[in-house]
Amino acid sequence: MNESQAFPRVAVVGAGAVGGYFGGVMARAGASVVMIGRQAFVDAVTAKGLFLDTVQFQETVRVEASTELSAVRGAEIVLFCVKTTDTADTARELVPFLAPNAVVVSLQNGVDNAERIRAASGLDAVGAVVYVAAAVKAPGHIQHFGRGDLVIGPETERTEQLAAQFARCGVPCRVSNNIEGELWVKFIANCALNPVSAIGQAKYGRIADSPDAVKLLEMVGDEVLAVARAAGIVMPGVEDRAAALAISMKIATQMREQFSSTGQDLNRGKRTEIDSLNGHILRRGAELGVPTPANHALYTLVKLLEGQK
Amino acid sequence: MNESQAFPRVAVVGAGAVGGYFGGVMARAGASVVMIGRQAFVDAVTAKGLFLDTVQFQETVRVEASTELSAVRGAEIVLFCVKTTDTADTARELVPFLAPNAVVVSLQNGVDNAERIRAASGLDAVGAVVYVAAAVKAPGHIQHFGRGDLVIGPETERTEQLAAQFARCGVPCRVSNNIEGELWVKFIANCALNPVSAIGQAKYGRIADSPDAVKLLEMVGDEVLAVARAAGIVMPGVEDRAAALAISMKIATQMREQFSSTGQDLNRGKRTEIDSLNGHILRRGAELGVPTPANHALYTLVKLLEGQK
Repeated sequence: MNESQAFPRVAVVGAGAVGGYFGGVMARAGASVVMIGRQAFVDAVTAKGLFLDTVQFQETVRVEASTELSAVRGAEIVLFCVKTTDTADTARELVPFLAPNAVVVSLQNGVDNAERIRAASGLDAVGAVVYVAAAVKAPGHIQHFGRGDLVIGPETERTEQLAAQFARCGVPCRVSNNIEGELWVKFIANCALNPVSAIGQAKYGRIADSPDAVKLLEMVGDEVLAVARAAGIVMPGVEDRAAALAISMKIATQMREQFSSTGQDLNRGKRTEIDSLNGHILRRGAELGVPTPANHALYTLVKLLEGQK
Repeated sequence: MNESQAFPRVAVVGAGAVGGYFGGVMARAGASVVMIGRQAFVDAVTAKGLFLDTVQFQETVRVEASTELSAVRGAEIVLFCVKTTDTADTARELVPFLAPNAVVVSLQNGVDNAERIRAASGLDAVGAVVYVAAAVKAPGHIQHFGRGDLVIGPETERTEQLAAQFARCGVPCRVSNNIEGELWVKFIANCALNPVSAIGQAKYGRIADSPDAVKLLEMVGDEVLAVARAAGIVMPGVEDRAAALAISMKIATQMREQFSSTGQDLNRGKRTEIDSLNGHILRRGAELGVPTPANHALYTLVKLLEGQK
C-alpha cells in the first residue's frame, strides 16, 4: 500500500464548521484525526465524540481533540481553518510540531492564505477552494446543509497525491491548474456578500430582494473583476460583469437565511477577516492602479464597526 | 410700524433642537411663538416654559405649545422643522390653517424641501441653510453649542423682509442670490458624515482620525460636486475636491463628539432622512448621467439597516 492509498494522519487546526465537517468526514472514513479547538469543543468531543448531522447521514465519530497546538505532531495533512487574522501567528507556531513531509491545506476565506502560510513559516502550503455549507450547532455538533468538496492546485505530484488522499477519506477533491482563478471566483461572492450582509445586518435573502443592494453587489464584483484582470488572473466561467454578479446572486438566493461570518464576527465584537477580503482588493487595486471605490466604502465601514466603542 | 419692524407671529412645526432653538430665540426677543411638538414637550413647556441653555445665555422663555397642527393658525412665519420623510404630508396638513401671507421657512436637511413643500401644498416656501449646533437635552430643554444663523434666498422683497424679521427677533439671517449653491455646500457634509457616522456607528472625531474614512468622505464629496456641476449649481467657495473635503472635515473636527442624526434615527429604529440626502444625489446623478457609486453604497446600507428585523 503506497502513501496515497493509506489513511493519512490528519490534524484540524481551528475546529469550526469547516474544519469540523471535513475532519469529521475523514475520521468517519478511517483516518486518524486530531482537532485543535476551544475547551468547550474539546470537552464535548472527548465526552461524546463529534456529531455529524449531514444531509447524507447522522453519525457520531471518534476524533482526538485538544486545545494544544502541539497535538498536531505527526500529522501528514493539516486542515488549516483558523481565521485569516491568525494565519501568520498560527503557521509559525505549527513549525516545531510538523515533519518535513507534512502539507498544510488552507481551508480559509481569501485568496492569499497559502502564500501567507509559506511566508510566515516556510511550511509546504496548498490553498483550497472550499465548497460547503455547514455550521456549528453546539460544541461538538456540526450541522451540514450541502456540498462538501474541495478544489486544490496547481497540478503537481503532491497535489494529485493529496487529492487522492482526500478522495479515499470521502472528500471529493478536484485538482486545478488554475487554482488562483478558482479561488478568485469564490472570492467575488465573499467580497460582495460578506460586508454587505455584515454592515446592513441583512441575511442573504434580503440582499437578493433589494435592487439597490444587488446593484451594490454588482459594483463590488466589477471592481474585483477589474483587479483580477489587471493581475492576470483568469476566473473560469467569469468572463464579464453579468457572470461576476451571477456568482454572488447564486449564493444569495440559494442561502437566503445565511448571515455572513463577517456579520457574526462584528455582532460578537470580534475582529473580522475583512483585511483578507475587501482589504486584499484595495491593496491589489492600489498596486495595479485599479480604482476600487465600492470595496473601499465597504472595507472602511467594517473597520469603523470593528472599532466601535 | 411696518410689517418688517413688528414682531411676527411665529409657529414652529416640529419642535426639536433646531426649531426649539430658533423659535425660542425669537420668543425671547418678543415674538409670539407657538410650537407644535410631542406630548412630553408640550407638557414640559406648558409647566415650566422653554429652557434655552445657550453659549450666550441661560434663560427660560414663554412659548405656547401644542400637539395639534391647527395651533399654527394666524402665524406669519412657519419654521418648518419636521423630518424630511414627513415634509409632503405635513405641508398639506398646514394648508387649512395658514393665511395667504404666511411663509413657510424650511429649516430641514437636504436641498429640495422648499420645492417639495410648494409642490405638496401650494404654500409659499423658502429654503434656509441652517447653521446651528444644538440638541434636545430633555423635553423643553434646548442645549446650544454654537452659531445660530440662517441663509435664505433668492433676493426678493419677500426674503429681504423675512430676513429683517429674523434679525429683529435676534436671528442673524443673510439673503443670498445663490441659495441653491449655499444649500449644496452644507449638503456635501450631510451626504458624507451622516451615513458614514450612522453605518459605522462612529462619532465624527473617529471618522476624522481614520485615513480610510476620510478617503470615503472625499469620494462622496467628489460625487456630490460632480452632480452639482452637471446640474449647473455653483457652490460658493467650493471650487475643487479639496475644498469639498474641507467642508466635511471642518465639521468632523469641530464636532468630534457628534453622532449623526441618521445614526440616531437608526439606533431608535426610526426611518432616516437618507432619501433626502444621498438618495437625492442618486436621483440627480441618474438624471444627469453622473456615476455615484460611493453614495449608492452608503444609501443602500442605510436602507438595509432601516429594514433590519
